Amino acid sequence: MQLTEEFAATTQYFPVRKALDDDTIHNFKPAKKITLDDLNQNVLKSEYAVRGSIPRRAEELEFELLNNDSSDSLAFENIVHANIGNPQQLDQKPLTFSRQVISILQYPELLNQRNILVSTGIFKSDAMERAETLLCHIGGSVGAYSSSQGVYGIRETVANYITARDNGETASPDDIFLTEGASKAASYLLSLLCKDKNTGVLIPIPQYPLYTATITLCDAKMLPYYLNEESGWSTNTNEIEKVVLDAIADNVKPSVMVVINPGNPTGSVLSKDDIIHIINIGAKYGIVLIADEVYQENIFDGEFHSMKKVLRSLQKQYPGKYDAVQLASLHSTSKGVSGECGQRGGYMELVGFKDEIRQAILKLASISLCSVITGQALVDLMVNPPKKGDESYELDNFERKNIHETLKERAEKLYNLFCQLKGVECQKPQGAMYLFPKLHFPQTLITEAINQNMSPDEFYCHALLEATGICTVPGSGFGQKEGTYHLRTTFLAPGNQWTEKWKLFHEEFFSKYQ
Amino acid sequence: MQLTEEFAATTQYFPVRKALDDDTIHNFKPAKKITLDDLNQNVLKSEYAVRGSIPRRAEELEFELLNNDSSDSLAFENIVHANIGNPQQLDQKPLTFSRQVISILQYPELLNQRNILVSTGIFKSDAMERAETLLCHIGGSVGAYSSSQGVYGIRETVANYITARDNGETASPDDIFLTEGASKAASYLLSLLCKDKNTGVLIPIPQYPLYTATITLCDAKMLPYYLNEESGWSTNTNEIEKVVLDAIADNVKPSVMVVINPGNPTGSVLSKDDIIHIINIGAKYGIVLIADEVYQENIFDGEFHSMKKVLRSLQKQYPGKYDAVQLASLHSTSKGVSGECGQRGGYMELVGFKDEIRQAILKLASISLCSVITGQALVDLMVNPPKKGDESYELDNFERKNIHETLKERAEKLYNLFCQLKGVECQKPQGAMYLFPKLHFPQTLITEAINQNMSPDEFYCHALLEATGICTVPGSGFGQKEGTYHLRTTFLAPGNQWTEKWKLFHEEFFSKYQ
Repeated sequence: MQLTEEFAATTQYFPVRKALDDDTIHNFKPAKKITLDDLNQNVLKSEYAVRGSIPRRAEELEFELLNNDSSDSLAFENIVHANIGNPQQLDQKPLTFSRQVISILQYPELLNQRNILVSTGIFKSDAMERAETLLCHIGGSVGAYSSSQGVYGIRETVANYITARDNGETASPDDIFLTEGASKAASYLLSLLCKDKNTGVLIPIPQYPLYTATITLCDAKMLPYYLNEESGWSTNTNEIEKVVLDAIADNVKPSVMVVINPGNPTGSVLSKDDIIHIINIGAKYGIVLIADEVYQENIFDGEFHSMKKVLRSLQKQYPGKYDAVQLASLHSTSKGVSGECGQRGGYMELVGFKDEIRQAILKLASISLCSVITGQALVDLMVNPPKKGDESYELDNFERKNIHETLKERAEKLYNLFCQLKGVECQKPQGAMYLFPKLHFPQTLITEAINQNMSPDEFYCHALLEATGICTVPGSGFGQKEGTYHLRTTFLAPGNQWTEKWKLFHEEFFSKYQ
Repeated sequence: MQLTEEFAATTQYFPVRKALDDDTIHNFKPAKKITLDDLNQNVLKSEYAVRGSIPRRAEELEFELLNNDSSDSLAFENIVHANIGNPQQLDQKPLTFSRQVISILQYPELLNQRNILVSTGIFKSDAMERAETLLCHIGGSVGAYSSSQGVYGIRETVANYITARDNGETASPDDIFLTEGASKAASYLLSLLCKDKNTGVLIPIPQYPLYTATITLCDAKMLPYYLNEESGWSTNTNEIEKVVLDAIADNVKPSVMVVINPGNPTGSVLSKDDIIHIINIGAKYGIVLIADEVYQENIFDGEFHSMKKVLRSLQKQYPGKYDAVQLASLHSTSKGVSGECGQRGGYMELVGFKDEIRQAILKLASISLCSVITGQALVDLMVNPPKKGDESYELDNFERKNIHETLKERAEKLYNLFCQLKGVECQKPQGAMYLFPKLHFPQTLITEAINQNMSPDEFYCHALLEATGICTVPGSGFGQKEGTYHLRTTFLAPGNQWTEKWKLFHEEFFSKYQ
């Protein structure tokens, strides 16, 4: 009733429409503008640190550097964007073959100029052929909507790739959804699986904040499980099971478990044993597993085990035991060696779901019509690169190896820096694009941070940005054990200058508060 | 407590992890798979007719035609996709200049081959120059994430376009968000503005089902206002105000009003007077206006008035009265003459919102990282085509005019067909890409439909598809006055064959039930 009274006080009923020449139609008391109170409070509660306050400040500084004379007062000449895994913003070049194909898809008229373009070496003929095949799958134009699940021919290519990756365990195009990056897949799954406030979603801590943000938007309950920093950010299954049982005791239904492998922000790679234990939890409690496997190509140390492959081997070994496991595996063109973040390509594979669930996801996807077609084509190119003997093979293979090696070198270089720094402890990078060092702050620094109304890790990242232009994200944005402090940084930036600057900053900053 | 007991019955606590060589870790009772009951019920409730049961059946038939011998038994050789405004799926060609630019953006190496490519006439030099400018705005690669609001330089171009469109009323790049089509913009706005179950969203009936689907997902309350079919689907402001007041009396807060102009599915164009009355409602009740103006270029009859231009003129004429009006205007590269549905480009302009609201939208956008960069570039190309004197101007202008004329001719041709058909009544098309004829069904047909568990319009569309391959959408998917029946069809398909087939089907079908 309150609402009615409030409105009754500010408005009076008379028809807005009479005749246009009648000035009374403009004779009303205007209402006020909406404020934050009028909004969906879950949006206000959600946080996405990767684009949070430090990155926003970095954007301001970058704007100053580009446009303003006052930039003379800044201690640096450019921003080092280490807050986000965005390889092509730094110096990573796109793969030539992929870009040739997409370029032709955008302007198929080039196919009619094949003689000139191939003889001059501007395009390779196998790029022309791949573009023709893809155009045929797509139906002639990247400017038309595809089916909401994605272009069928591309889903077939993805299914073949997964089958080969998982030692012949068959994947079906019907279970593949082409999505705008992995973010969109995560959003579909959580929107669907979060039934109400009592739905629990297990997330690793630290985690990629897309998950906390999306769970908050869905108004579901976060069930954090902590990774073991000391043993390379491995999972602790006993602890996970305790989280599940505590949730049940609290009348929260643990429905979904997010697993990020290789880890973001941790850079770890899960062992096969860890994955088996996670699948056991899924099987025993009927918890849907979301395997965020977008960094599956970014492995420097150890081996990537896809959750599906491990599941299939368990299903063979223990007949009947694992038949009800439901798994969604996410992949993306943004990471790996393609690094095509801005092109918004990705896929998810659904494993073990009832068909009615697949249909519900399809309906959700249909409301967004379809994912961008060139992003879908890039998925095809990611999983089906030129093969030995193909004209583009050598260059493509060289570029892929080179990117992989470069990433590995940069990871090691930054890791070595952190090993040298006083008060910094870092796990050895095994995969992904990030390091997540632990910072042992002096007490005076902690006190000063609190005085300035910041968490100590935020205080450090803030000072690092203002002193050097290096933009990182405080560990608090990803979650960390109470009383510990971290930061996430990508290792993607080239050169030694930025790591040198970081070293100097760190030593000065720590000695100031020692 | 029920949940706890249920789980206690099916699971027993023992640590899943002991040692891997211990078979007890696989010794648990597996849980069951999830079912529809376990899902977010709003997803199940949501409906998106444009990709609903008739289009799904059309997909099956198309699959049969392509892959199956049983297609011999079908009465047609291809599906006519008239269910969705997807011009390039039919025979509309993309604009050459736009595609040349995007092709270069995808493979900037082409810029180094300028001499060959321009001298052979493969690319125009102004396409090369535009690509260089855009690459500079974008920061060098379409494969990098942009800021979540979109590339600044492109937002500047959009702001300049709006300023010119609205007779010099200034637009600012800070108020422009680049989005994946208009669907994503609608989704951001409704997710944010739908606070709770008591939030009311006014939607026209008939409406584009993206809105009903999204409102259902947001768990808000739909407040339908009916358009006047008899007077060319105009708005009735008295009725709208009654809807607002009835909602308030019901303790529902009318917070948002969706206006689709030119109309989808109606094909109508709102008069300036209608728009003034709508703005009055927004001003008087503090209702946020969402102006879906994606068909602003698709005008065949009458004139398009942007809601912002009308608002600005009211603000000048009645100082202080309209200052609190809050408006979001949506546009897209999917429609107009570019028709680039699969490229997922679009923008929204925010007018009159407090900065805190803009920040909240930005946070929501940041969780999706950014919209696809080539889609952003296409927005630039849509609003800033080649100018008189530019090398590409003549061809581009010819193509644009040609597409516009073709669409107009097809609209008229289909309208003329409907005028001839018995029991069909259709408003004259003024804009957009659709006709929404009213079907006066014989009573025997209505009875037969009900016997077959279908609404009569669904029954008709179903029979039309099975007999001719023409895929349309029943009016019930868009909303219609009780006891009336319609269907939505695009007029995009080329040739006369399909309209002839429709005519024959209609006459036969109606005479069967006469």
